[in-house]
Amino acid sequence: MARDTRERITTAAATLFRRQGYTGTGLQQIAAESQTRVGSIYHFFTGGKDALTAEVVRTGGAAYGAMVGRILANGPDDPVDALGAMFEQAAVDLAATDYADACPIATIALEVASTNEPLRIATAEVFENWLQGLTAFCHQIVDDPAGARDLAVAVLVTLEGAFILARAARDPEPLLAAGRSVERLAAAVRTGSADINGTP
Amino acid sequence: MARDTRERITTAAATLFRRQGYTGTGLQQIAAESQTRVGSIYHFFTGGKDALTAEVVRTGGAAYGAMVGRILANGPDDPVDALGAMFEQAAVDLAATDYADACPIATIALEVASTNEPLRIATAEVFENWLQGLTAFCHQIVDDPAGARDLAVAVLVTLEGAFILARAARDPEPLLAAGRSVERLAAAVRTGSADINGTP
Repeated sequence: MARDTRERITTAAATLFRRQGYTGTGLQQIAAESQTRVGSIYHFFTGGKDALTAEVVRTGGAAYGAMVGRILANGPDDPVDALGAMFEQAAVDLAATDYADACPIATIALEVASTNEPLRIATAEVFENWLQGLTAFCHQIVDDPAGARDLAVAVLVTLEGAFILARAARDPEPLLAAGRSVERLAAAVRTGSADINGTP
Repeated sequence: MARDTRERITTAAATLFRRQGYTGTGLQQIAAESQTRVGSIYHFFTGGKDALTAEVVRTGGAAYGAMVGRILANGPDDPVDALGAMFEQAAVDLAATDYADACPIATIALEVASTNEPLRIATAEVFENWLQGLTAFCHQIVDDPAGARDLAVAVLVTLEGAFILARAARDPEPLLAAGRSVERLAAAVRTGSADINGTP
C-alpha cells in the first residue's frame, strides 16, 4: 500500500513534469493527481520537491533508456535501419500523446541547468547512461570506440532536438526528417565514405 | 527614454528566460533586473507576462537567427566546413557564459508546448524561420529542395539537442561531437554517397 502510494506520486510527478515542466509543477498538484496529501509526499521524500524530482529523473530516465533499448533490439536487423525505425516510433508515440510525452527529462534539464546543481547533475547522469547504451549499440555500426561514441551523441542530440521542434510545431515531421538524417549519417559512418579526416 | 525602458525590460526578460525558463521568471524579477516597476511592464505590454514573452521569443529568435547567419556567412568558404565551425563557435560561446546562454527559445518552447497555445505558436514560428534560413544555406550543399530542408532540420535539431547535453554536463564536448557529425552528414549528402534511397 505504501509502495502503491509512492509509485502513484512518482508517476503523477513524471507525467506533470513532461507536460508542464519542473518549475510549473507544485506539490499540491502532484498530491491531487496521485490522490494523496502533500504530507505523504514528504513522508516518502523527506527532501520535498527536489528529492522527488531527482528520483523521477533517475527512474524515469532508466525506464526510458530501457524502452529505447527494446525498440532498437526489436527493430530491423540492420542497426542503421533500426536507428531510423526508432525515430519513426518516437514520431508515432508523440502524436499519440497529443505531442506531450517526449523525452522525460529534457524540459527539467533545461530548467535546472543554471539554477539547481543537484538536479543538473541528476539529468547529466541520465544522459551519460543513455549515451553509454547507445554507444554499445552503435559499435555494431562503427568499430572505432570514439566513432561509436560520436554516432551515439549524434543520435541522442538529434532525437532531443527533434522532440523540441515536433512539440512546438505539433507535427511529427521534424522527427521523421531527423530519422532520415540519422540513417544517412550512420550509413556514411559505416562505409567510411564521409570520413572528414580522409581516413576510411 | 520610453524606448530605453522597453528595451531594458525585454533584455532582462530574455536573459532570465534563458537561465531559468519562462515559468520560473516572474514580473517582479524582470522589473528588478531592468530597474523599472511592474506597472511599467504593463504599460508597454498590456497583455502582461505572456505578451512580453511572445515579444522576447520573436525578437530574440530573429536576433539569434541573424547571428547564426552571420557566423555561417563569415565562416570557412566551404559550406560544409562552415557548419562545423558554427558548432565550434556555439561551444566557445556556451562555455564563456558559464553554460547559460544557449538557444534563446528552447527552454520556453518545451515549457509551453502543452500548456500555452499562443506561446507555443510563437516558438514554432521562430523555429520555422530559422529552418528557412538554414535551408537557403544548405542549398549550397544540396540542390534538391527536400534534401536541403532535411539537412537544415538535421543541423537545427542537432544544435538544439547538443545544447541540452552540453548545459546538463557543463561540457562543450556534446556540441563539438555534434559538429563533427553534422560535417560528416553534410559531406555525405553532398557526395550522395550515403543516399539511403540509392539515388545519388
